[in-house]
Amino acid sequence: MSTKTSAVINIFERRESEARSYCRSFDTVFTSARGSEMTDAKGHSYIDFLAGCSSLNYGHNDPDMKAALIEHLSNDGLAHALDLHTDTKAAFLQAFETHILKPRGMDHRVMFTGPTGANAVEAAMKLARKVTGRTNIVAFTNGFHGVTLGALAATGNGYHRGGAGIELHGVTRMPFDRYFGDSTDSADFLEAMLRDTSSGIDAPAAILLETVQGEGGLNAARPEWIKRVADLAKEFGALLIVDDIQAGCGRTGSFFSFESMGVMPDIVTMAKSISGFGLPMALTLVRPEYDVFGPAEHNGTFRGNTHAFVTARVAIEKFWADDTFQQSLATKSMIVTTALGQLARMIPGARLKGRGLMLGVDVGSGDLARRICARAFGKGLVIETSGSEDEVIKVLAPLTTPEATFRKGLTILLEAAREILSEETKSIAAE
Amino acid sequence: MSTKTSAVINIFERRESEARSYCRSFDTVFTSARGSEMTDAKGHSYIDFLAGCSSLNYGHNDPDMKAALIEHLSNDGLAHALDLHTDTKAAFLQAFETHILKPRGMDHRVMFTGPTGANAVEAAMKLARKVTGRTNIVAFTNGFHGVTLGALAATGNGYHRGGAGIELHGVTRMPFDRYFGDSTDSADFLEAMLRDTSSGIDAPAAILLETVQGEGGLNAARPEWIKRVADLAKEFGALLIVDDIQAGCGRTGSFFSFESMGVMPDIVTMAKSISGFGLPMALTLVRPEYDVFGPAEHNGTFRGNTHAFVTARVAIEKFWADDTFQQSLATKSMIVTTALGQLARMIPGARLKGRGLMLGVDVGSGDLARRICARAFGKGLVIETSGSEDEVIKVLAPLTTPEATFRKGLTILLEAAREILSEETKSIAAE
Amino acid sequence: MSTKTSAVINIFERRESEARSYCRSFDTVFTSARGSEMTDAKGHSYIDFLAGCSSLNYGHNDPDMKAALIEHLSNDGLAHALDLHTDTKAAFLQAFETHILKPRGMDHRVMFTGPTGANAVEAAMKLARKVTGRTNIVAFTNGFHGVTLGALAATGNGYHRGGAGIELHGVTRMPFDRYFGDSTDSADFLEAMLRDTSSGIDAPAAILLETVQGEGGLNAARPEWIKRVADLAKEFGALLIVDDIQAGCGRTGSFFSFESMGVMPDIVTMAKSISGFGLPMALTLVRPEYDVFGPAEHNGTFRGNTHAFVTARVAIEKFWADDTFQQSLATKSMIVTTALGQLARMIPGARLKGRGLMLGVDVGSGDLARRICARAFGKGLVIETSGSEDEVIKVLAPLTTPEATFRKGLTILLEAAREILSEETKSIAAE
Amino acid sequence: MSTKTSAVINIFERRESEARSYCRSFDTVFTSARGSEMTDAKGHSYIDFLAGCSSLNYGHNDPDMKAALIEHLSNDGLAHALDLHTDTKAAFLQAFETHILKPRGMDHRVMFTGPTGANAVEAAMKLARKVTGRTNIVAFTNGFHGVTLGALAATGNGYHRGGAGIELHGVTRMPFDRYFGDSTDSADFLEAMLRDTSSGIDAPAAILLETVQGEGGLNAARPEWIKRVADLAKEFGALLIVDDIQAGCGRTGSFFSFESMGVMPDIVTMAKSISGFGLPMALTLVRPEYDVFGPAEHNGTFRGNTHAFVTARVAIEKFWADDTFQQSLATKSMIVTTALGQLARMIPGARLKGRGLMLGVDVGSGDLARRICARAFGKGLVIETSGSEDEVIKVLAPLTTPEATFRKGLTILLEAAREILSEETKSIAAE
Repeated sequence: MSTKTSAVINIFERRESEARSYCRSFDTVFTSARGSEMTDAKGHSYIDFLAGCSSLNYGHNDPDMKAALIEHLSNDGLAHALDLHTDTKAAFLQAFETHILKPRGMDHRVMFTGPTGANAVEAAMKLARKVTGRTNIVAFTNGFHGVTLGALAATGNGYHRGGAGIELHGVTRMPFDRYFGDSTDSADFLEAMLRDTSSGIDAPAAILLETVQGEGGLNAARPEWIKRVADLAKEFGALLIVDDIQAGCGRTGSFFSFESMGVMPDIVTMAKSISGFGLPMALTLVRPEYDVFGPAEHNGTFRGNTHAFVTARVAIEKFWADDTFQQSLATKSMIVTTALGQLARMIPGARLKGRGLMLGVDVGSGDLARRICARAFGKGLVIETSGSEDEVIKVLAPLTTPEATFRKGLTILLEAAREILSEETKSIAAE
Repeated sequence: MSTKTSAVINIFERRESEARSYCRSFDTVFTSARGSEMTDAKGHSYIDFLAGCSSLNYGHNDPDMKAALIEHLSNDGLAHALDLHTDTKAAFLQAFETHILKPRGMDHRVMFTGPTGANAVEAAMKLARKVTGRTNIVAFTNGFHGVTLGALAATGNGYHRGGAGIELHGVTRMPFDRYFGDSTDSADFLEAMLRDTSSGIDAPAAILLETVQGEGGLNAARPEWIKRVADLAKEFGALLIVDDIQAGCGRTGSFFSFESMGVMPDIVTMAKSISGFGLPMALTLVRPEYDVFGPAEHNGTFRGNTHAFVTARVAIEKFWADDTFQQSLATKSMIVTTALGQLARMIPGARLKGRGLMLGVDVGSGDLARRICARAFGKGLVIETSGSEDEVIKVLAPLTTPEATFRKGLTILLEAAREILSEETKSIAAE
Repeated sequence: MSTKTSAVINIFERRESEARSYCRSFDTVFTSARGSEMTDAKGHSYIDFLAGCSSLNYGHNDPDMKAALIEHLSNDGLAHALDLHTDTKAAFLQAFETHILKPRGMDHRVMFTGPTGANAVEAAMKLARKVTGRTNIVAFTNGFHGVTLGALAATGNGYHRGGAGIELHGVTRMPFDRYFGDSTDSADFLEAMLRDTSSGIDAPAAILLETVQGEGGLNAARPEWIKRVADLAKEFGALLIVDDIQAGCGRTGSFFSFESMGVMPDIVTMAKSISGFGLPMALTLVRPEYDVFGPAEHNGTFRGNTHAFVTARVAIEKFWADDTFQQSLATKSMIVTTALGQLARMIPGARLKGRGLMLGVDVGSGDLARRICARAFGKGLVIETSGSEDEVIKVLAPLTTPEATFRKGLTILLEAAREILSEETKSIAAE
Repeated sequence: MSTKTSAVINIFERRESEARSYCRSFDTVFTSARGSEMTDAKGHSYIDFLAGCSSLNYGHNDPDMKAALIEHLSNDGLAHALDLHTDTKAAFLQAFETHILKPRGMDHRVMFTGPTGANAVEAAMKLARKVTGRTNIVAFTNGFHGVTLGALAATGNGYHRGGAGIELHGVTRMPFDRYFGDSTDSADFLEAMLRDTSSGIDAPAAILLETVQGEGGLNAARPEWIKRVADLAKEFGALLIVDDIQAGCGRTGSFFSFESMGVMPDIVTMAKSISGFGLPMALTLVRPEYDVFGPAEHNGTFRGNTHAFVTARVAIEKFWADDTFQQSLATKSMIVTTALGQLARMIPGARLKGRGLMLGVDVGSGDLARRICARAFGKGLVIETSGSEDEVIKVLAPLTTPEATFRKGLTILLEAAREILSEETKSIAAE
């Protein structure tokens, strides 16, 4: 490592909190990025299969968004505007209405929450409780919804829950789709518990779910399961909240992850890629009849991140005004699926998981997954794991990644896996 | 209103959630801003005495920060980097260490939380609970710390609390300084409750306070009260958390609001103006011995808002490398104090509140305060109220506001007040 | 109804709270009782198949207990002694140790809690939390553990839960044995949730269960299921609490309901029939290593109900010093089982439930069950329903009921059922 | 100690939980008691100034109650009757209505809760929450209301709270009368917090208080403070709950402790001496308009302790049918007050506390108080301490104690104090 890079890393070790995390897996100092590639201080280039955990679905520094943002800056456009009316926010709303909501038959109101996914989830949970007068919210095994206290209660991960330092409450946990394998429909359990007045499950204000659980290990619920859960929500007077923070913005093949499933959530949370550029922005979409917060009843200083509105508008107009982009996703999904299928076949018991371009392979062991990812990083690929034991190698590349880059990155991944597995075999043989 | 502006406003009414708020007081569409002035779609100019609720302490579009950000963009610097190491974050940390922490004898670690103040507060509360193994946190009457579930429990405002839809817990409420006037020291109450093992107040993990309560009505605690509370925290094994989100970054006359009070908080939360440019960014500063979160135990997608690190670094280097800026604040505080003194004298029972450039006048009635602010807006001044009944007209201008602009804005405010009061007198006389 | 009885009933209507309940099903005024029969103010006699909800397992006014209590009173024995040492309490403890604990290889400490079952459960839950430093307690669908706030959180019944007026927390609900029928082992669900660190189920302080759920509808868990749950508790560091309040004291055929199942609970709660005479008394039995409350850390004024200790000692010495009594239970269980089998065959879909002398028939409808019980009451039988919809006719006769009386009561029940079913058939035919 | 007594004590040490408490202060085995005197296994006699913590206001084994109970037993009267109608309960209700409620202008409904004070408090708290739809309950410093989870949240004592093992919630703590001495009216604090919508105190469902805090150290609230709190409750839509479990049944000089204060609680909880004989019994009295529980919504097996109804009726008819008994209390209070005044004067800084026959002396140190009580026990007096540090020697003698016995007991107490103080002086002199 160069002296300069060392010095830079020293400041992190000396001054940044131990809570820092990804930097521990990718031990270098990044300096620039464009599209699907990142560059570090030593000039090394990396293919990015992490994409800010799906916050960079359109890649780094998209040239059109960049140009629009530089223009906005040059014109002294507002950077911060609380929730004042700005022409920039109006233009975003117009584009979102025209290209996203209307074509999908949605009349949801757009609530600009504090610009974190957790904040959008907190707003959704509060709203469902206010609307129904109930406190209980049903969430699922392996769900991840953020780490502020309200959202953390809905998050399944024990490590994150342990950080609360206080009992988490207000949430009932139910098994996600296929939690008990394919022979049992876990929605039977949910239905039985809701239908039985002595089950001890209080009538829920909402059922909160991700259609594909990102942090939980790329568990993709079957559309029919989601439809059934949506119907149960309706029958039992609960709002359906789809947390589309990681799975939305095209990640699973359509703008919203729940399209073509025959369900229409009462509330949708969005963040990560909604700004298009990786800037902090979050939305809570609410059916008009449930838009019951009074002015500022849920508020937050940065709910008007105008820079993000600039790039978000460009993202929507560029990628979602027609179906060209969406169609490209299917092709790319095939490429990744094929390669990950190869990976899965290398490892006994491994299996492909996910949907669209939210794909991965459960290799059965967090240790193995981490070693493969580390080896891949050494070869110029940024890739991470997910799942409760980090046992899933996940590919969350920018959706705009060219096919050639996809192939290059996947080749690195397969090579890395081959090397690690071969070393492992030798090591076992040597014992 | 022009047709275009009307059309723009229509999109907000049609599509934005009822939770929108400030736009209801300032019914126009803003298009650009520079320094202490904002411009709307009709070309009208406004002096900004709101400053994004203290998020724009260095004004709108500071030219140096703007230039740095455009350069960063032009060079394809990272926009979003999770918590990866970047040269940009390193440069911010270096500047923060050199110009902020070291000169103040602070060895606090910097935790980049999700970029909202509420998230920084949630992290602080979780950390205090984890460190101490206790759950109770002492917060104060009229405190405001955010509206996500953990932070909301510490927020006093009944309107915001009501939005939770679920019982808020884990917080014990104590009277802020001078809550019972000047004859009773409210810290006596806190001490008595802590000292008495049968008071029903469980041993606290932390005492959480703002030195000047912004949303709560510009209540400025006396340094000796804060010192006493800090000593009680220490004696009873509780961490002292200063929420410096609104009062920090120079707002009360020094970088941190608690400087020169003889106290050193265990945890400090920062947001609002920390990025310098109004971009979403938040920090939780933690004494090294309490930096006990594991990697990602508290996390969030946008904790690496690199654009904000660019401008935050410039802000620190430009304004805090020497004491020129800080010295200018005292002079400006005098100007505002003098004018607000005049305002207070116009209204029977009115009184000046606050500290530094976080000043206001309690006019005794939310209705009167709102009418004066509305009139001022008609005259080209953006100014807001605070306090539990919105009874305080508050001046939160950019700290960089030139003296002439200050005087111009204050003149508008005084005129607005004079007109409203005179109309009121006439109206009463006419009855 | 006689004038006198009317006058008496008036005082209840005028003065007693609407919370009164059983008196609504059995609309007369009872004046005396002996063995398995009760007499009302009009001189009518009733066979008692309710037995104070299993609080009168040895019948009303057992002559030996009565004699001992009259002697105690005549000698000015203490009635109320807080938790002072008394010869009476010593004698009870001695008998309990000799005839109950020792023969079963138990070294549990006896905690005299406030004399209600709910209080014994609250003590158990607090203790498990104190021992483990965890807060979560696993309880089961249809469980009933009392209605004070801690116990109510563990109770499944929605009607009772609704009375709390505040969110109930600290409990995770799991499916009881056969909750999904015979093809799915509900313990698989519990195991999966406990084993998965991202399930969202926090590590439990205790698993709390009834081996036969009384109020929940006489659901008898299979011994192998209980054994498996016990093993899971042990593996995951949770205490096993068996709530034996209704199922204990011989009700299911042995003193404790869990005997011969290969499990030894860490904590057992007892109440109802423990005094032998129907007097208020409750115990929490605790393995010595978990007996960690400090003096009076859990207390209560009436924890020393000395009269109850007098009768409790007699009950133990009379019924449990050898196995005569226990052997008689099996025979009686056969008699009841046979008759209830007949009842079940009369009603399509009905099925026999329970174990030992805690038996009933699920007739599929609360309305039908209530009508049969009401008719039986008219014929001189006191009998009640249970289950979430009151759909189970339950037989909870004194265990001392002579076989002839059992047959007489069961004949009444069958007659009542026949009449109701016949009327129903006619009524349908007439439509 | 005799061999027999040793053997008896062994069974307690071997078999009873460590939670046992009073027996540690009074290390003997009691065998009988009559009136105000208790006898132990060695034939020693003790004057009882503890009276089952005010559960034996009419002394031990009152001959009329004893006779009635023996007669009830001899006639096979019911012992346990759930909440069925019995002639015995009717007679109690009639007596309670005639002699207690009517003369005091009360139309409260009588709810028979589980027979512990904690259960009556839990019912009261649940009811207030159900009636108002609010969750917050205001309770006071040093209040004691029981140790089940709902009641424990309202209890101030840190030792008991610590036993919960889980966060206690739903209660806001306020300072009791004179908590800050005589110069500050603590109701000012309550009023300020309730009136301020940003105080962080949610609108309360109820204000819960003891007029004299028994366990909290015999703190007697001034009638005018109670009146003011009652008025605040009314103004802010909260129910007033008076917990009269220890202070009721004549203990403070009238049947209810709040008589002649110009207040009428919405809910009153009773237990301890309500049965007259020390038997487990508890009541929650509720204004008819707040009697909103449905049938069995709050229930409990032992809510029909018929033996207690027998003695409770006799107690009311014997002691409260006219004012003879009540008048005797004033005289006895003078005797105790005089003697305790002497005691207080012996000890620098000591002060008399309490009201009626609920009196004590704060001697400033738990250690001193305990040593004096221990010495008194050696001389034949059973007497205990209270207060958060056990610093108050409290006299809770049966109200029926003859004047001569009072004098005898007080003489022992004064002698014990004199001896301890003299030994202390010598010990200090010797150093």
